[in-house]
Amino acid sequence: MRTAVVLVSGGLDSATTLALAREDGFECYALSVDYGQRHRVELQAAARIVATLGAREHKVVKLDLADFGGSALTDASMAVPTAPSSGIPSTYVPARNTIMLSLALAWAEVTGSRDIFIGANAVDYSGYPDCRPEYLQAYEAMANLATKAGVEGARLRIHAPLLRLSKAEIIRRGADAGVDFSQTVSCYQPTQTGLACGRCDSCRIRRKGFADAGIADPTAYV
Amino acid sequence: MRTAVVLVSGGLDSATTLALAREDGFECYALSVDYGQRHRVELQAAARIVATLGAREHKVVKLDLADFGGSALTDASMAVPTAPSSGIPSTYVPARNTIMLSLALAWAEVTGSRDIFIGANAVDYSGYPDCRPEYLQAYEAMANLATKAGVEGARLRIHAPLLRLSKAEIIRRGADAGVDFSQTVSCYQPTQTGLACGRCDSCRIRRKGFADAGIADPTAYV
Repeated sequence: MRTAVVLVSGGLDSATTLALAREDGFECYALSVDYGQRHRVELQAAARIVATLGAREHKVVKLDLADFGGSALTDASMAVPTAPSSGIPSTYVPARNTIMLSLALAWAEVTGSRDIFIGANAVDYSGYPDCRPEYLQAYEAMANLATKAGVEGARLRIHAPLLRLSKAEIIRRGADAGVDFSQTVSCYQPTQTGLACGRCDSCRIRRKGFADAGIADPTAYV
Repeated sequence: MRTAVVLVSGGLDSATTLALAREDGFECYALSVDYGQRHRVELQAAARIVATLGAREHKVVKLDLADFGGSALTDASMAVPTAPSSGIPSTYVPARNTIMLSLALAWAEVTGSRDIFIGANAVDYSGYPDCRPEYLQAYEAMANLATKAGVEGARLRIHAPLLRLSKAEIIRRGADAGVDFSQTVSCYQPTQTGLACGRCDSCRIRRKGFADAGIADPTAYV
């Protein structure tokens, strides 16, 4: 059976991505990164999602990106924006997807997986440079030169099945693939018990996605 | 003053790289990664090297790659080879340089640095795919698409000043640039007190490098 490493953050995009990877016939190694994010309930959500959808193994790698600072998602002294911003917002975590994909690449090598799935999205991507198609293509090219598998002639693929979908389309695809969205957390600043603020960028995009999809929003807001 | 992030492992290659980055006029952010390596005296060596050569800041990021297994350098159940191997040796750590460069990229973004230095070497590289020139070029292309700086039109550069030098040439350049090689550790399995085994790939390459360079080897062997 073909195996894939799937990055699972606990949000609805990565939950849908895991469901789609399984639909594609992959046995999945689910990888979450504990990077010092404010919204740690995300990691609990990731565990619930993986338990429900199923995976060969779920690993949580700890890496303290808060050490570097520079993002409202890891730096408690920076405010999470609650109004739409132009340009790259302060919730951007420097090099996040590059770091996550690199950890996925390491696990893919060890498990002999040729496929890596990430829930990156270029439509509702909130202005992050590392969610663009050209970035992912360049990552894949690099990955094929970086690894033992690549040297030995195998072809590594970075899959981003949500890349060109709107949030509403992601929600419809996820619902069809059996995702329980009540298990997912999108909010950048949820309460300790996992209630969403309803005001940050991520909550706004999520809420509008359910409305546009015509699917009831199961999110518990404060 | 221009700043650069420099990966400093504690070995002689990265010590020389830091010295060369400083010669090039960069104020340096020295980055070490505690990735669960067997040879932890490397990290103590890194601290000594940075203290001697000087840097604006030295950060040690903890990331447990041993979680993934798959390398003799992080997996205590695998033997470190003491005979030359053909192909990619078991001391290869999956995706190591990709992960290290990604952490350097994150710190570069936060500090506004446009330059990253790595001591990768394609001549005495022991068969690691992620020490090849084509890999580093692909990484640089990816990095320029990954980041805020790249989006805003800055040019990020990955410098690998040792890439085409022999070990003897690296030792000569390092000596000229003021590296104290007695502070550096190359051995894959040093003793607790930092004595080198003299038998692993890395010891053999180092020893021959000093001999070829005609410079006295200051390494303390068991």
